[in-house]
Amino acid sequence: MSKVSVLLINGSPRKYGGTFKLLKVAEAGVIDAGGEVKWIHLIDYNIKPCIGCVSDDQKLCKFPCIIKDDEFNKLGEEILKADGLIIATPIYWYNVSPLVKNLVDRMTSFENMILHLNRSLCDGKTAGFIAVGADSGAIMTLANLMIVMNSMGFHVPPWAIAFHQSEDDVLMNKSAVIDSYNVGYNVAIASMKLRNLNEWYRVPRDLESIISKALKEAELYTEQRTFRLKKMT
Amino acid sequence: MSKVSVLLINGSPRKYGGTFKLLKVAEAGVIDAGGEVKWIHLIDYNIKPCIGCVSDDQKLCKFPCIIKDDEFNKLGEEILKADGLIIATPIYWYNVSPLVKNLVDRMTSFENMILHLNRSLCDGKTAGFIAVGADSGAIMTLANLMIVMNSMGFHVPPWAIAFHQSEDDVLMNKSAVIDSYNVGYNVAIASMKLRNLNEWYRVPRDLESIISKALKEAELYTEQRTFRLKKMT
Amino acid sequence: MSKVSVLLINGSPRKYGGTFKLLKVAEAGVIDAGGEVKWIHLIDYNIKPCIGCVSDDQKLCKFPCIIKDDEFNKLGEEILKADGLIIATPIYWYNVSPLVKNLVDRMTSFENMILHLNRSLCDGKTAGFIAVGADSGAIMTLANLMIVMNSMGFHVPPWAIAFHQSEDDVLMNKSAVIDSYNVGYNVAIASMKLRNLNEWYRVPRDLESIISKALKEAELYTEQRTFRLKKMT
Amino acid sequence: MSKVSVLLINGSPRKYGGTFKLLKVAEAGVIDAGGEVKWIHLIDYNIKPCIGCVSDDQKLCKFPCIIKDDEFNKLGEEILKADGLIIATPIYWYNVSPLVKNLVDRMTSFENMILHLNRSLCDGKTAGFIAVGADSGAIMTLANLMIVMNSMGFHVPPWAIAFHQSEDDVLMNKSAVIDSYNVGYNVAIASMKLRNLNEWYRVPRDLESIISKALKEAELYTEQRTFRLKKMT
Repeated sequence: MSKVSVLLINGSPRKYGGTFKLLKVAEAGVIDAGGEVKWIHLIDYNIKPCIGCVSDDQKLCKFPCIIKDDEFNKLGEEILKADGLIIATPIYWYNVSPLVKNLVDRMTSFENMILHLNRSLCDGKTAGFIAVGADSGAIMTLANLMIVMNSMGFHVPPWAIAFHQSEDDVLMNKSAVIDSYNVGYNVAIASMKLRNLNEWYRVPRDLESIISKALKEAELYTEQRTFRLKKMT
Repeated sequence: MSKVSVLLINGSPRKYGGTFKLLKVAEAGVIDAGGEVKWIHLIDYNIKPCIGCVSDDQKLCKFPCIIKDDEFNKLGEEILKADGLIIATPIYWYNVSPLVKNLVDRMTSFENMILHLNRSLCDGKTAGFIAVGADSGAIMTLANLMIVMNSMGFHVPPWAIAFHQSEDDVLMNKSAVIDSYNVGYNVAIASMKLRNLNEWYRVPRDLESIISKALKEAELYTEQRTFRLKKMT
Repeated sequence: MSKVSVLLINGSPRKYGGTFKLLKVAEAGVIDAGGEVKWIHLIDYNIKPCIGCVSDDQKLCKFPCIIKDDEFNKLGEEILKADGLIIATPIYWYNVSPLVKNLVDRMTSFENMILHLNRSLCDGKTAGFIAVGADSGAIMTLANLMIVMNSMGFHVPPWAIAFHQSEDDVLMNKSAVIDSYNVGYNVAIASMKLRNLNEWYRVPRDLESIISKALKEAELYTEQRTFRLKKMT
Repeated sequence: MSKVSVLLINGSPRKYGGTFKLLKVAEAGVIDAGGEVKWIHLIDYNIKPCIGCVSDDQKLCKFPCIIKDDEFNKLGEEILKADGLIIATPIYWYNVSPLVKNLVDRMTSFENMILHLNRSLCDGKTAGFIAVGADSGAIMTLANLMIVMNSMGFHVPPWAIAFHQSEDDVLMNKSAVIDSYNVGYNVAIASMKLRNLNEWYRVPRDLESIISKALKEAELYTEQRTFRLKKMT
């Protein structure tokens, strides 16, 4: 079996900063777990902002993206080939960097393939997340990234986040370093175990019977509702 | 191999409501994936709020929790036995219900075993999430739950959330129903594939060499920093 | 004119901790701005969790709350008398403490008076927020508190947040101390300037004409939509 | 006294959509409150992403922004002149649009003037927020915007948010329309009452004495801590 491949996505416009450093630590985790990495510095790509075609017409949005005068589609091919991603972002106002924002928004073209192919192109891949700032907002930033990527179809392995929020050098923050290593290790391990499973979203055949069963069982509790209401008034 | 076991945790004080209904749909997903379920209605348990011993002395917090005059430790044993959890919560002010809040906070006693056993008791389990409200706030509620559970050591499989935010009956909301089914299905499938892997958090032996490598490589980019600074002033 | 009165609400079960300390600093700000304070330690009150009556019947929820066997209604009277609140919470899993959670949820009985009196009982009061933890999650915690209180009708004055997220003593963190002082000062100043204005929520009489004007103007831009769609396909 | 001036900032790349419509409704609120408006369609401005100079050297960041080959500084002058802002954004992945993201990030140059002039250029202005999407994520989007703008020095008046999350036409959603009207009305009213107050952030002269008083009072509670610890072990 070939090695799992993890894309390390540096979302900072500053290649030399704390975001890079923690991502570099995550790389060690991926390697130790037996994976291989490919580096993407988003600042090297010209990725324009999403213009929300999906709100004009849901089916307009697909991969390759119809914005053709930039480099998203090229980067998109790299994401398609990868088993996992680690997105590292500096924290700008309790939120991701604009480079990461543009990447995430444009990945709508992956997720929206569910309308064209019955399948998100992210379905079953694995993702981890790193955030670095001088002050605060790491959890708000990471929580948004995590739920967004999960809503595109990514698996999120245990301990999938690492962060640093202080003006001190990030590599002096031992727990940030260890956490970053674990992000890398766990994205690789989970990718390995899950990579042959790539049909995670499904519509059950017996939807109506599932619904009516739920309805019926809820009705069994009706008496409790009446009891509560009586008690409360 | 025994079936995977998924705990269905109903966080609503109202057993007969929308939260229950979507969790019932998730149950169908678990069963279809070959898992088995156990129901927990939090309202049936007397779980007191966490009192934050961990801030008095980090090692005080452990499982079984030292608050002994309630039923958390009993419920805790059920969680320990399960391979996966699905937490379904009504939305109270863009946040979980107090029943779910108390459960999550008390689970600190699981996560904090990392100080006693080098391992969170949640490590490598799988979790999915459902939120139901009349108005709004589902994503904020679910994002908090998801990142918290991941920070305790849970996997979050693809499409791990479902929600409904409207006064209409939840079972009329087809996408909420299909999503709930998928939450159940995917928690079960991921639990199955991942359950023999239960050491997800580790400290790398060569931490210092990892750090110095990251530092060195960051320095290679120093020239770019000098260039940026010159350009900007 | 009487002094403005600001309620200082300590949401920690540990009266002697960092949450208390920053709230004490905020008190200095209130006093310096010419206000007066009243302290509430939530741990001294027996406040039970909200049970979501509003989902059984919207009109059931009102102040005084129908849960009568606890002390929320007594505390509620204090809130009613205050011009402003400062809620200080320890951070439990990137979220408020259970004491604060219960308070906030039960305050639904204030906000829901909009159905009974056309007015939230919080309407036009002012609020500020403090969060203290050993690790992370302050912004996620505060963002939830802020938008929730604003959705109940509170003003949020400039620089309304302060936080500390480290194991060091909170009083060594100068920016947390200065920010806490400002939370107090600004809640008092804003309360003073705004306290005679207490009808902040209104239904415009000419709703239909407002709607049709918005519709008409949006149509003027239709040509742009057609142009976009053409360009995109 | 001159009328208060409120900037209506449309953050959608689609001028004709739901975001525009609710902002148009907010305009009616501003006018009814006696204010005047100025429209900004962000799509008409060429605003480049922030490149985070502040991380290279904190003092580099100031207004006018050193990125000079775009139109942020022109727009910045409009914001400076306004008493209040209403930012309306479409929801892209539970977050603001890239147009709004770039605006917010570049406004760091306003806030960071605190290092140059002891004062954020946003200090004491008023802000309200509108979010429109087809699906979900309004509260997460708005909570981020609200706490960010507050952290730059903006006042947030009661009921400062409005949102719509459905594929139906936004103008059919009566509560979204009424809420948008209130956002406009309240931003205007609060701006009026507060506009002569523009020194909201201050450093107390007797910082040390405030700190030592807090410390002393916390120590009075020490006994309680000892009692808790005894009880818990």
